[in-house]
Amino acid sequence: MRLSARDLAALTKLVGEGNLASDREARVAHAAGRSYIDLLALRSGHLHSAPDVVAFPEDEASVASVLAFANDRGVAVVPFGGGTSAVGGVGPDPEDKRPVVTLDLRRMRRVLAIDPVSRTAGVEAGIRGPLLEEHLRGQGFTLGHVPQSFEFSTLGGWAATRSTGAFSNRYGRIEDVVVGLRLVHPGGILDTSAAPATAAGPSLKEIVLGSEGVLGVITQLTVRIHPVPSRKHASFYFRTFDEGIHAMRAMAQSGTPPAMAYLSDEAETEAAAAGGPAPAGTRAGALQRVARGRGGGSLLVLAYEGTVHDMRVQARNAKEACRSAVSLGAYPSETFEKERLATPYLRDSLLDHGVMVDTVETATSWSLLLPLYRSARDVLLRAIWADGVAGLVLCHVSHMYRDGASLYFTFLARQKAGDELEQWKRAKAAVTEAILANGGTLTHHHGVGADHREWVAREWGESGVAVLRSLKERLDPNNIMNPGKLLPPGG
Amino acid sequence: MRLSARDLAALTKLVGEGNLASDREARVAHAAGRSYIDLLALRSGHLHSAPDVVAFPEDEASVASVLAFANDRGVAVVPFGGGTSAVGGVGPDPEDKRPVVTLDLRRMRRVLAIDPVSRTAGVEAGIRGPLLEEHLRGQGFTLGHVPQSFEFSTLGGWAATRSTGAFSNRYGRIEDVVVGLRLVHPGGILDTSAAPATAAGPSLKEIVLGSEGVLGVITQLTVRIHPVPSRKHASFYFRTFDEGIHAMRAMAQSGTPPAMAYLSDEAETEAAAAGGPAPAGTRAGALQRVARGRGGGSLLVLAYEGTVHDMRVQARNAKEACRSAVSLGAYPSETFEKERLATPYLRDSLLDHGVMVDTVETATSWSLLLPLYRSARDVLLRAIWADGVAGLVLCHVSHMYRDGASLYFTFLARQKAGDELEQWKRAKAAVTEAILANGGTLTHHHGVGADHREWVAREWGESGVAVLRSLKERLDPNNIMNPGKLLPPGG
Repeated sequence: MRLSARDLAALTKLVGEGNLASDREARVAHAAGRSYIDLLALRSGHLHSAPDVVAFPEDEASVASVLAFANDRGVAVVPFGGGTSAVGGVGPDPEDKRPVVTLDLRRMRRVLAIDPVSRTAGVEAGIRGPLLEEHLRGQGFTLGHVPQSFEFSTLGGWAATRSTGAFSNRYGRIEDVVVGLRLVHPGGILDTSAAPATAAGPSLKEIVLGSEGVLGVITQLTVRIHPVPSRKHASFYFRTFDEGIHAMRAMAQSGTPPAMAYLSDEAETEAAAAGGPAPAGTRAGALQRVARGRGGGSLLVLAYEGTVHDMRVQARNAKEACRSAVSLGAYPSETFEKERLATPYLRDSLLDHGVMVDTVETATSWSLLLPLYRSARDVLLRAIWADGVAGLVLCHVSHMYRDGASLYFTFLARQKAGDELEQWKRAKAAVTEAILANGGTLTHHHGVGADHREWVAREWGESGVAVLRSLKERLDPNNIMNPGKLLPPGG
Repeated sequence: MRLSARDLAALTKLVGEGNLASDREARVAHAAGRSYIDLLALRSGHLHSAPDVVAFPEDEASVASVLAFANDRGVAVVPFGGGTSAVGGVGPDPEDKRPVVTLDLRRMRRVLAIDPVSRTAGVEAGIRGPLLEEHLRGQGFTLGHVPQSFEFSTLGGWAATRSTGAFSNRYGRIEDVVVGLRLVHPGGILDTSAAPATAAGPSLKEIVLGSEGVLGVITQLTVRIHPVPSRKHASFYFRTFDEGIHAMRAMAQSGTPPAMAYLSDEAETEAAAAGGPAPAGTRAGALQRVARGRGGGSLLVLAYEGTVHDMRVQARNAKEACRSAVSLGAYPSETFEKERLATPYLRDSLLDHGVMVDTVETATSWSLLLPLYRSARDVLLRAIWADGVAGLVLCHVSHMYRDGASLYFTFLARQKAGDELEQWKRAKAAVTEAILANGGTLTHHHGVGADHREWVAREWGESGVAVLRSLKERLDPNNIMNPGKLLPPGG
């Protein structure tokens, strides 16, 4: 504990009795996110760092007062949403020796206003996915934003990390969901325009989105909402991943693709079908039937969403694009959707069995997608094999745009006992270099956090780094906000 | 001329023989844009300022070398696209006493690459609308971006000012059109990611878009392109503007509205129908027939665009939304589209006849749209009448979003001889205050320029101003880039 009793008393006064915790459990629970490095550390029992105290502010004024206090006293502040960062975004910086207050936003979870005419809602940043949906659905609306961390992650966290949801083909990324927002920074409050569109200069909203807590704390957002939709599922089986990607592109460029589309490469399709004989009516069962005697193959699961008419247009475009594929009906997609939010829990079981498992993701244009895919997969496999262990690389495409799409790799390998962290670092570095060398972005939706910092200058360039440093210096001159994240090391 | 012969020789060397002009004609042609203030000044023959020299660089390296020279010598630089700014964006700052080089980008107009698979194109910033469309259509594509200044304005200018085109309901605003871009600033080059989407921090692209030349010169862009579409026209006549707005909202919230939709209020509808008996098959004729015996009324012209199927979906949504209206068929919309690009020329004839004419525009949420409309119109009329002259205020809605729409006002009044500028300033100030007080953005697509500077802090807030000043100071520490634009005066 690097904070004095007097500091703690002052903080208690700022956030209110009962809204401050400095017990071991609270500190450990806020020491790490869900990156591979975080999971290794949590399992080893040797955390590199933990906050000295966790505050649970109940309103924006408390956030502002904590930031003013911290700025004055030389205390670092880590904003904390659901704690699901896959890139080391929420742990205190082990290099920074100042005391740390983690601001857990979970008690700022009110829906402030719903405007059914404009179809917008004003919401506090700390609300989690399920509670937000419960509120909105009570009024006949949905946000339509369902990242895989949905159960735990928060609206503010989605905005801070440029999150993307499974139905992004219909509702867009978080930058399309958010109309405007409020950011409390150590020197004041940045409140961006909530007009549907504006030509009044550079976009302040787009400066806050993706700022990962290093500029301040997002406290409140205005978001676009949609009438609760109907949903239908469909699945198709392609001879090859290449053929499936061709169909994905046709759907994306039709202008009205399925709300969700998730195409697995041959390895991931095989993994989904693996196991003993599966009952009919399950994804594995359907896959086993069709894959029997075929080998290889690439599974595409789809969801059509919206009005009956919207679904008809999406289905028409999908069927047109998937002419060459075998239709597998609704089951594989329905099962997929039920399993999707649970998939991350698998990582714990795998780690229990001594398996290294992590994911990397990127996006690029359609014309670079297959070369990037092949190169990144080969580099990953080679990096794993170079360590003399067996490994597996799975890939899917799950977000598409008119001009390109995302690629999401899962890599698994037997852990090298005693060398777990370095083993992971070698694979991570190799695949990241391959992604950047082949025209991919450093990250499509995981963010930068601590894990991608060393590469971010490659994405932004020298002038881009200078721009982001100047924003940081202006809004957070004493570098108290989430130190050690987003910005490249040094300088 | 505030530049020495030696400076001119140095500049000639940087941009190449024949790419520099300091004759009176070139200087006058680059002294002003097309704002009301600009038009008054051009007609009076008393220009407040003009560049000392106009450079026509042929490539990015020349732009960079001119900026380095200017930065070194204390010379201001004004980037110049089509010169169509409606808000004083391209004239040298009369308050700034340094020499001025205007960089006219018209000789940087190459289409560098077309990627038909990803449906993107790499293009130099100085290309004008018609030439860009000619190139793209030669390959079966279109940009789909047609602002009213289309004939003269440039891709780089559209990006620098956050332009919007008539078909924005289908192709989006310029921020949706542009994937990535390059900005030359006095200290280097900012090259933003060209991935279809990224979570690698705040958006550098969205910092350059809308920067109006104050951070640097946009030299090159990657844009999304679309297969050349088919187009169909339709028109509807509503009893009232309110009823038309209700239909616009229904179309916008259907998710697939007509590519173009333009709804005139009662006054603008009446103006469109005005004049002597009009021939059948013209917009005026159709309007006169339907308006006869009705009075009032609000005209909506639509264009459906895309594939046959796209147009069918747009038409279905439009007809559903316009159930209460009288269909006027294709003619009024076809005529409207033919006349649209010529409308700005009318301003010259009106000025010839001693009529003050200008436009102001904004956007807001659907629930604030009608109150804002009424307030702004009343304030404008009152401001005009307070001067004891007859006046007219017309309005239309021409860009729509799920959560709101734009409003575009045209105001006309007899000029007060000898008091023309102050008369305009009073009306402009009154309506701008009304727009801001009623939840509208300062500008939906005209930009800030010089004319909106005094209000921009109201849009951005104190922290927003600080953020934009820090960007300016980092990228252009000597304030050579387009001084007197975008940023609020002082400080």
